[in-house]
Amino acid sequence: MCTLRGVLLFTALIAVALGVRASAAGDSAGHGDPVAPVLIALMLIALGAAVGGHWMKKIGQPAVLGELLVGMLAANVAFYFGDPVITVLREGPTMLNVFDTAVAQNLGLADAARRVLPDSEHTRRLAEILSSPDGPVAISVFQFIDQLSRVAVIVLLFLVGLETSVKEMGKVGVAAFIVACIGVVCPFLLGVGLMAVMMPEAPLAKDIFIGAILTATSVGITARVFRDLKQTQRTEAKIILGAAVIDDVLGLIILAVVSGLVVTGAISFVSVSAITLKAVVFLAGAIGVGMWLTPRLVRRLAQLEFEHMKLLFGLGFAFLLSWLANLIGLATIVGAFAAGLVLEEFFLNELKGHSLRDLLSPLEALIVPVFFVLMGMQVKLETFADRQVLLIAAALTVVAIVGKWVSGLGCSARLDRLSVGIGMMPRGEVGLIFASIGKGLGVVTDAVFSAVVIMVMITTLLTPPLLKITLARSERRAP
Amino acid sequence: MCTLRGVLLFTALIAVALGVRASAAGDSAGHGDPVAPVLIALMLIALGAAVGGHWMKKIGQPAVLGELLVGMLAANVAFYFGDPVITVLREGPTMLNVFDTAVAQNLGLADAARRVLPDSEHTRRLAEILSSPDGPVAISVFQFIDQLSRVAVIVLLFLVGLETSVKEMGKVGVAAFIVACIGVVCPFLLGVGLMAVMMPEAPLAKDIFIGAILTATSVGITARVFRDLKQTQRTEAKIILGAAVIDDVLGLIILAVVSGLVVTGAISFVSVSAITLKAVVFLAGAIGVGMWLTPRLVRRLAQLEFEHMKLLFGLGFAFLLSWLANLIGLATIVGAFAAGLVLEEFFLNELKGHSLRDLLSPLEALIVPVFFVLMGMQVKLETFADRQVLLIAAALTVVAIVGKWVSGLGCSARLDRLSVGIGMMPRGEVGLIFASIGKGLGVVTDAVFSAVVIMVMITTLLTPPLLKITLARSERRAP
Repeated sequence: MCTLRGVLLFTALIAVALGVRASAAGDSAGHGDPVAPVLIALMLIALGAAVGGHWMKKIGQPAVLGELLVGMLAANVAFYFGDPVITVLREGPTMLNVFDTAVAQNLGLADAARRVLPDSEHTRRLAEILSSPDGPVAISVFQFIDQLSRVAVIVLLFLVGLETSVKEMGKVGVAAFIVACIGVVCPFLLGVGLMAVMMPEAPLAKDIFIGAILTATSVGITARVFRDLKQTQRTEAKIILGAAVIDDVLGLIILAVVSGLVVTGAISFVSVSAITLKAVVFLAGAIGVGMWLTPRLVRRLAQLEFEHMKLLFGLGFAFLLSWLANLIGLATIVGAFAAGLVLEEFFLNELKGHSLRDLLSPLEALIVPVFFVLMGMQVKLETFADRQVLLIAAALTVVAIVGKWVSGLGCSARLDRLSVGIGMMPRGEVGLIFASIGKGLGVVTDAVFSAVVIMVMITTLLTPPLLKITLARSERRAP
Repeated sequence: MCTLRGVLLFTALIAVALGVRASAAGDSAGHGDPVAPVLIALMLIALGAAVGGHWMKKIGQPAVLGELLVGMLAANVAFYFGDPVITVLREGPTMLNVFDTAVAQNLGLADAARRVLPDSEHTRRLAEILSSPDGPVAISVFQFIDQLSRVAVIVLLFLVGLETSVKEMGKVGVAAFIVACIGVVCPFLLGVGLMAVMMPEAPLAKDIFIGAILTATSVGITARVFRDLKQTQRTEAKIILGAAVIDDVLGLIILAVVSGLVVTGAISFVSVSAITLKAVVFLAGAIGVGMWLTPRLVRRLAQLEFEHMKLLFGLGFAFLLSWLANLIGLATIVGAFAAGLVLEEFFLNELKGHSLRDLLSPLEALIVPVFFVLMGMQVKLETFADRQVLLIAAALTVVAIVGKWVSGLGCSARLDRLSVGIGMMPRGEVGLIFASIGKGLGVVTDAVFSAVVIMVMITTLLTPPLLKITLARSERRAP
């Protein structure tokens, strides 16, 4: 059976690589439907995710780890063989930068890539693909899959929010606040200290920026692991989610402070207070007004008897709050989680038909794995080749992990503190966004940026297996 | 109640216009999540579709008409107020041309627009948006919504295919073949005749190309109307679907013949036979091999007990066949329909859990309206302002309608021949693709192209209400 699974996996990998390639070549020839390469990419990603997830579940690991590994293996193999679509897909946020530069400055994509990215063999290869006949296909597949994966993580956090109530969150509020604060202060101080030791010649502003990068928490992967293991109802899960929301607000403030320090050399208390106020008002408002307004709205909508009302209203509300959160400067997933919190209590009773969770279940099965396979695809194994980068990365990773593990001490000793610490560990995209802002401001060098990318990859890949171990251990202890 | 509905609709329209605009402005300012404008656009489209669909159902019309009308009204109002996202969205296939040109020639999007589109006030406005700070947002919303709507129509045709069996299609095969042939020959001859009368100075090749444009059938809207009215089990529906598949093969042959005539002045029987053979082999192969292979495959998969196996396998199969159809040169929706036909019979019994149709129902409710709202958005009311264009358009439309209505005579007199004829009427994107190829070859002028666009819009908008009337009438006669 094990060989069969191995063969299946390998076939899926090669299929991903060659299939997407064939679709690119096939499509550039004729006047075909531009959706064709997207369809085959979606099909192959779903197939890879199913095989990877199934394989991990068989050996007792969360499915999400399989999705990450399949994405990583498939993308690195396909990249090695020069697949144009995969080469563009694995660039991720970098491609968005290239794309925005191209549009804003009315440049061709290849020229924009040459301008935005460092002058390297890799950039030359990317620019070549972008101006080749495969270019339009690769870009349109990237744009669709990238956006779809962002919608997916919003659906995931909305679902997690639906499984939690405002009351339950209130109960863990204090613990979550302490965990969040420790999880911001510790990695920050450790990061600043590390930089002061490793690069004593660098200015303090740079040390502070690195510290700030280490404070971010990206809760998507932790939420998914808890869902895979069907443990979203554990107090630890609620503390992590609450702490992640508070971390996002703290991160916003830190970013404002640090950017202010770097750009003007001073902190503007007015702008920092304004940002804090906006974020707090948004969260309190979304939850307060939401809890007051939505029952009334739903009762009125229930009389209209739209078909699929529950699904459309639920997702529409999640999308609206995600959009509002983004407008304020918070992460979209914080808005989605808040939407789930607000809707949870009464929604199951007011409207007829299946529960919202059941209705969203097929959608979740289809699109959520896309997010994690794409995340895996962006793990570039070739970045591990540079020794100097690897040294900084190793140091950063240790500091990043220790800093967040300590945060688990913020909650009661009766709980599984280590699981909380591990759950806070993954940095995900939030850390990368901080790092790229720092790069734009000139305080993050290319080597440090690559090291941050490696740190993000390692914390992301380590979370599912470690969390699986600690949760199983604490369950054995207190059944 | 009627005023309430009117107010709701109006609010939705304005919200669509201003909301998308605000999202564009809000996002270009900060380092936000690029998915935010997509979320608000999706939410507003879903809201508009729900309001429009509900409104139409109340007055006894298919929901799809409401979606088309909401899209049309919202987009024209928003365009009038200069909304950048809507201005790009309503360009539809034109934007894809601009985008492909930009990538292939390494140009900025604004420059590509100026090169591809005719030099007009409208083009200048579009180019300005594409190089403004709103540009990246408008493009990314367009790319996602456009691709999502293409996925949506594939899901729709797959669902329609699931409700039909190969056996049932076999029973109506002869009738469908005759209907398809009449529906190709009549509009073709009428189109050639019309051009010979209206533009006697034009070369024969041009007349023939216009005739070819009129032969296309786009079955998406008809399929949706039958679904809205819950009449997919009627023999007329099956004949129309069968005829649409055959039409797509015939269209492929005609395109090869006509392009050959225009480019080389001769018909290559070898290439025409090769194209025909490929298409027939694909369809026979997909259905034959599919019916033999899928039960065996499903039985093996059933032992593995993947979660969500049914959904993933079903949609994966539909996507694969759509991709293969496109590779051959057929429409993706023909592949999706074939996939549905093959899976229908045994799928409901082999695997445990909800039926595939139930699992796809939330997905259908969420994304299918996006296709029709976007189709409505692409109805540009300002094209109706040019008298010369309007004259050609009126003549083309009459010929297009009459030519397809006649095709209903191909089926038994016991059936509702008029409904079959009306069901064959909408041209949709297939006609536009033909016309744009003709424009590329230099045989379709700008005026004729605009006239074709108007013809497509009118045949699309007329189909839902007319089909509703004739189906209700024939149901009253034979209850």
